[in-house]
Amino acid sequence: MAGGQLSEYITFTKDKVEVKLQEFVSNLSAPAILKESMLYSLTAGGKRLRPVLVFATLNAFGKKEDLGLGAACAVEMIHTYSLIHDDLPSMDNDDLRRGKPTNHKVYGEAIAILAGDALLTNSFQLLTDFEHEDITPHMKIQLLTELVKASGTEGMIGGQVADMQGEQKHQQLTLKELENIHLHKTGKLLGFCVKAGAILANASNWQLTLLDEFSKHLGLAFQIQDDILDIEGSEEALGKPIGSDTENDKTTYPSLLGMKAAKEKLAYHIEQALESLHKANVQGGLLEEICLYVAKRDR
Amino acid sequence: MAGGQLSEYITFTKDKVEVKLQEFVSNLSAPAILKESMLYSLTAGGKRLRPVLVFATLNAFGKKEDLGLGAACAVEMIHTYSLIHDDLPSMDNDDLRRGKPTNHKVYGEAIAILAGDALLTNSFQLLTDFEHEDITPHMKIQLLTELVKASGTEGMIGGQVADMQGEQKHQQLTLKELENIHLHKTGKLLGFCVKAGAILANASNWQLTLLDEFSKHLGLAFQIQDDILDIEGSEEALGKPIGSDTENDKTTYPSLLGMKAAKEKLAYHIEQALESLHKANVQGGLLEEICLYVAKRDR
Repeated sequence: MAGGQLSEYITFTKDKVEVKLQEFVSNLSAPAILKESMLYSLTAGGKRLRPVLVFATLNAFGKKEDLGLGAACAVEMIHTYSLIHDDLPSMDNDDLRRGKPTNHKVYGEAIAILAGDALLTNSFQLLTDFEHEDITPHMKIQLLTELVKASGTEGMIGGQVADMQGEQKHQQLTLKELENIHLHKTGKLLGFCVKAGAILANASNWQLTLLDEFSKHLGLAFQIQDDILDIEGSEEALGKPIGSDTENDKTTYPSLLGMKAAKEKLAYHIEQALESLHKANVQGGLLEEICLYVAKRDR
Repeated sequence: MAGGQLSEYITFTKDKVEVKLQEFVSNLSAPAILKESMLYSLTAGGKRLRPVLVFATLNAFGKKEDLGLGAACAVEMIHTYSLIHDDLPSMDNDDLRRGKPTNHKVYGEAIAILAGDALLTNSFQLLTDFEHEDITPHMKIQLLTELVKASGTEGMIGGQVADMQGEQKHQQLTLKELENIHLHKTGKLLGFCVKAGAILANASNWQLTLLDEFSKHLGLAFQIQDDILDIEGSEEALGKPIGSDTENDKTTYPSLLGMKAAKEKLAYHIEQALESLHKANVQGGLLEEICLYVAKRDR
């Protein structure tokens, strides 16, 4: 999927994060079925892009990845809860996710809702319980505040509601509306990952601002490629049927701009992301590779 | 509902908490429908027992209530989210709550799920953003850790799953199983309220332990009265139909022990709660009144 150094880095991240998540959930004192349902979705073979972003940002500041393990796992728990709830019959009503039956198909709707609630709630525990000599109480509160902003009403959840409202309009959205949805629905949480790494690395304010720009463009590029894959992707690589956006009359970059212009838009956002990254004056080799990977990924 | 000093104190608490919750949600930058749905359930006329417990505990230590406004509102947001999710068709499938249509009946299931997620997520923001000269970053992290423990897998959510599993057994639970469910499903969050007040008041460890005992007994008493009200209560005062436990063959204190012994058990837990409270050596007049109110409430 990703070449060279990044491919190894993704494997390194997956190993670290999956061991920690497994350990954290297994050690919770809770009904077995709840933990099983949480772990089912947590270990369903995600790309771990968000943890990779946390680690790669720390790496760009010359810091050890271990510093970000709590934030990386917390954000992955939040991402996973959002997928479980999005898949529910009253939301997207999806039966498959990453080639496997969705959580409610296996455990029923009630447990799926509660497993989502639990992943969300306990993610904040993982974030604040995580101990490291370089993490101060003040930093923890900063991380927590940013994670809530990224995942709550002003971030992911707000974006999800705006997306649903967009679908109910039964007409094409404008580019501005579409971008606004993606900036909130997926962009803010991706942005948190970079910000978390930067906060933990004691980045300067001007660097935080530039890395925020980097994340915004990366997030939009990620979403455009998502839209493209729903048309040009392989069902086998994606682990889910393609063509669902077209079928559901969803506004996407290709439906709004045409495929050629959508690909140009993708290239534009990657270019802008790289420019912000260079200005931030960090050793951003891995973050650069992530940009290129996001633009070319097949799943 | 409650007499004398407590009645006034409940009104005082309601006013403070409702103003703050309204202000907090209104100021969020999010789609209007999401905020409307959150506020619909937040302002649906709850008893505000949890905020009253936070304030009364501070009062017992001679501290100003304002110190606990963040914790009181955060816990009320979590309590409200849990009611929205519990009422969903795949959970309890309730149409009425406090005499009003449930959230999903008004806004649909998808928005109800997301409003619940948002109340949960943003409750942690309210808790950590709340500024007061006597609240240190370390205290905030302590409060956050306790709130997650009380509401997550090891608390409320774990209890909810255990409750569902109990119902699926189609046979009476043992008293131990029943108590274990209630200690988690409702007890831990009530316990958080007292603990939050005590943490903010810089209580000693021995006082925290005794107040924890107090909360446990208070929580069980609260639940027994809940069970009794489902048989002997008035639909008008409760704002929902009575008899649903019997109809659903649910194990309750009266079904397990008989009504007379259930009332004795209620009296026993109130007595134990008061004993722990007296040992904690605080000015617990209001907390005492809450005990008596819980035992005698009609809604």
